[in-house]
Amino acid sequence: MKEYPEKLSRAQRSFLRSLFPGTESSFDEGALLACGVDASREHAKPLVLVRPKETSQVAELLKWAQKERVPVYPRARATNKVGGCVPVRHGVVVSMLDMDRILDIDSRDFVTVTEPGVITADLQKAVEAQGLFYPPDPASLKISTIGGNISTCAGGMRAVKYGVTRDYVLGLEAVLPGGEIIHTGGRTHKNVVGLDLTRLLVGSAGTLGLITGATLKLLPLPETSASVLIGFRDLTGCLKGADAVFGCGILPTAMELIDHNSIRALEMHFDVPWSEGTGGLLLLKIDGSEESVSTDLGRIGKALDRVETTFMEKGAGADQERLWELRRVISPAAFNLAPDKQGEDVAVPRGKVAEAIEGYHAIGAELGVIVLCFGHLGDGNIHVSVMYDKSVPGQSENSLLAKKRIFQKTLDLGGTLSGEHGIGLTKAAYIGMQLGRAEQRLMNGIKRTFDPMNIMNPGKVV
Amino acid sequence: MKEYPEKLSRAQRSFLRSLFPGTESSFDEGALLACGVDASREHAKPLVLVRPKETSQVAELLKWAQKERVPVYPRARATNKVGGCVPVRHGVVVSMLDMDRILDIDSRDFVTVTEPGVITADLQKAVEAQGLFYPPDPASLKISTIGGNISTCAGGMRAVKYGVTRDYVLGLEAVLPGGEIIHTGGRTHKNVVGLDLTRLLVGSAGTLGLITGATLKLLPLPETSASVLIGFRDLTGCLKGADAVFGCGILPTAMELIDHNSIRALEMHFDVPWSEGTGGLLLLKIDGSEESVSTDLGRIGKALDRVETTFMEKGAGADQERLWELRRVISPAAFNLAPDKQGEDVAVPRGKVAEAIEGYHAIGAELGVIVLCFGHLGDGNIHVSVMYDKSVPGQSENSLLAKKRIFQKTLDLGGTLSGEHGIGLTKAAYIGMQLGRAEQRLMNGIKRTFDPMNIMNPGKVV
Repeated sequence: MKEYPEKLSRAQRSFLRSLFPGTESSFDEGALLACGVDASREHAKPLVLVRPKETSQVAELLKWAQKERVPVYPRARATNKVGGCVPVRHGVVVSMLDMDRILDIDSRDFVTVTEPGVITADLQKAVEAQGLFYPPDPASLKISTIGGNISTCAGGMRAVKYGVTRDYVLGLEAVLPGGEIIHTGGRTHKNVVGLDLTRLLVGSAGTLGLITGATLKLLPLPETSASVLIGFRDLTGCLKGADAVFGCGILPTAMELIDHNSIRALEMHFDVPWSEGTGGLLLLKIDGSEESVSTDLGRIGKALDRVETTFMEKGAGADQERLWELRRVISPAAFNLAPDKQGEDVAVPRGKVAEAIEGYHAIGAELGVIVLCFGHLGDGNIHVSVMYDKSVPGQSENSLLAKKRIFQKTLDLGGTLSGEHGIGLTKAAYIGMQLGRAEQRLMNGIKRTFDPMNIMNPGKVV
Repeated sequence: MKEYPEKLSRAQRSFLRSLFPGTESSFDEGALLACGVDASREHAKPLVLVRPKETSQVAELLKWAQKERVPVYPRARATNKVGGCVPVRHGVVVSMLDMDRILDIDSRDFVTVTEPGVITADLQKAVEAQGLFYPPDPASLKISTIGGNISTCAGGMRAVKYGVTRDYVLGLEAVLPGGEIIHTGGRTHKNVVGLDLTRLLVGSAGTLGLITGATLKLLPLPETSASVLIGFRDLTGCLKGADAVFGCGILPTAMELIDHNSIRALEMHFDVPWSEGTGGLLLLKIDGSEESVSTDLGRIGKALDRVETTFMEKGAGADQERLWELRRVISPAAFNLAPDKQGEDVAVPRGKVAEAIEGYHAIGAELGVIVLCFGHLGDGNIHVSVMYDKSVPGQSENSLLAKKRIFQKTLDLGGTLSGEHGIGLTKAAYIGMQLGRAEQRLMNGIKRTFDPMNIMNPGKVV
């Protein structure tokens, strides 16, 4: 197969300038460097940056890119944590940020149709104004886009009750390498015609085609919600508390865990509300009608009477944001413990969370790095931050060793290397720990069916 | 490529007898005829019926079948309505009914691991005994199996709140043609490692591989539920009622519609509770804690005060089964109107349900056949029964014409040919009305990746 180009010819540049006139294309050094990184801090420089406004431009681009064998790297706000957006084989970075129109919000169909560059929080606000609800809420939602969320199958805190991005994508418009435009699924909430191309594209990280539009399922907006922050002596107490809540027949919207190291980081960051002796926290949210939220809250309180707690604070309406702010600042607060970080997002079967977290802490203790665990207890998806100081000899190596051992511990417990972030570049070396050869061969076969010349996000593992 | 065999050689029979000893294989004429039909009433006779007890036998069989190019037709309780189980190219029918063990129910992981031959209702009872909940509830659930439900991505009434089978399959064990055993997904509730082979297999109707095991997500069992049957003057009233319920911030578990022709069929069947002048019915279910169900029920009542109703009856606990029985007998009751039936399961965008049903009724009136519409209003998935009398000249032709026009009307409204049953044999001729060429080419490419010799359920469209 033809090699990927190391630079663009005069004819290629001129083609791109005419397809993407004015500021729609950029060959400027600074712009190219800026669009070559993502939240993983990995980087590479593309040959050109383009900003389509219409699907037809994307189709022309992908027809050309296939013919010339130029790699194509779709990109939006690049909040990807595993290098998914990094143009490691150079080529074209395609910023989808100018395809940012919400095309339709239909309160009778419970559907929205949107271009990929819309910020997720903006879409949520727009549908909520019509009494509708788009549940997926990755932590990045105020900056990340629907297109990026779909490409990574973004999760979030509300997944316990409402599921992940995959569960809300009814249909997609995508451009295949070669320029053909496909439409998968549709506008109906149920659809079983043909193989499920829609969910195959969700989470495929731009390796199969370039998503240019999405039809998303909406729900009626719950009238209200309330949150409870509960302190326990230790991790075991936390898990008992979680069991008590699940045991009372209520499916919480979100159920987050904050471990003792995260508590320590928060305590160094600002005044915290919980009492001394708190070694683990649960943060719950429930939603529904005014009456049902109030009665469910009472029931949760009663269920927790049977468990030893150190602290409890309830919040309703806007007031509960105060509690969620504590959860959101864990990531920045973690740097109070050490200046450098390896962040992973493993998931284990829900009942194995205690064993997993104890194992991760033990790995940290053994290797002299601090391991923080927090995140989505409700679905076993734990954010594990290995905090270290690379200026201390041996700590960089030990942080990497900790990462590998955390992965092994996770897999030993029946878990997965990634619950939300994907594999990308930064975990590509570890994929063989989880996926068998036959499964990888099938994935490669599917990839070739969509992208026979391997021009879509090459150099990545989904 | 080698032709499919028209009969088995002595060596082939002897191989099958040694792999499936005693009653595990059958060449008996009666058995072969019996296992060649499904609920579509299409039929064909296979060359042999086998009943594996272990995945290893399936692997041996698929290794052999690939080498000899013998078609493989997976089968369970054959409730399939579109001919999905019919062995149109003869070959081997593989009954999965002897792989019927529930291997694990874990109330901390919220997971069950099961063989494919387990009856769905039995699995539900088993998990409910441990306070857990497996929501998908196709109408066939008391006779159909988990394996069949997964192969068809079965829906059901509770899909409004809880989604369909796809949303509960976390991991699969499947055997590929050639005999390789693959494991997709896993036991975690979130997992984004690799392309989503799990959801690709869900709904693939045995065309990609043979499913031998499944890991399913469970929820905490809601404490209680309640139902309401509400009568309206006509379809428009029904739809207004549905809007009022969705508008009050409650997501019902199920929301079923019964149209005037279905009402007529029920009235001919037995004593019905509703008052005269009822031209449409809504049947709702809600679930949750005792308190929240009771308050939500009150709120629904209030919301419906603003809509003209002809009748309302509430049921809680076991008492509500009486109401649901009315919904379940529509199918048999329909034969009070005419002796023959074409049943379809189209879906349209939720807001288009009124227009769709009016259109279907008009098609029936025009062609002199009776069109009954009932089913899952909450997700736009309407069961449309064309009732006719084939002994009347022209009615058979007109019922087929009605079917085609119903499909066209559905697609014109942005709908899909199938919300639950799939395409199989009986709708294969219509697939081009919905899927484009590029999309079909991708599906064919994926099929070849899994099944290069086309031995898995050949002659069908997914």
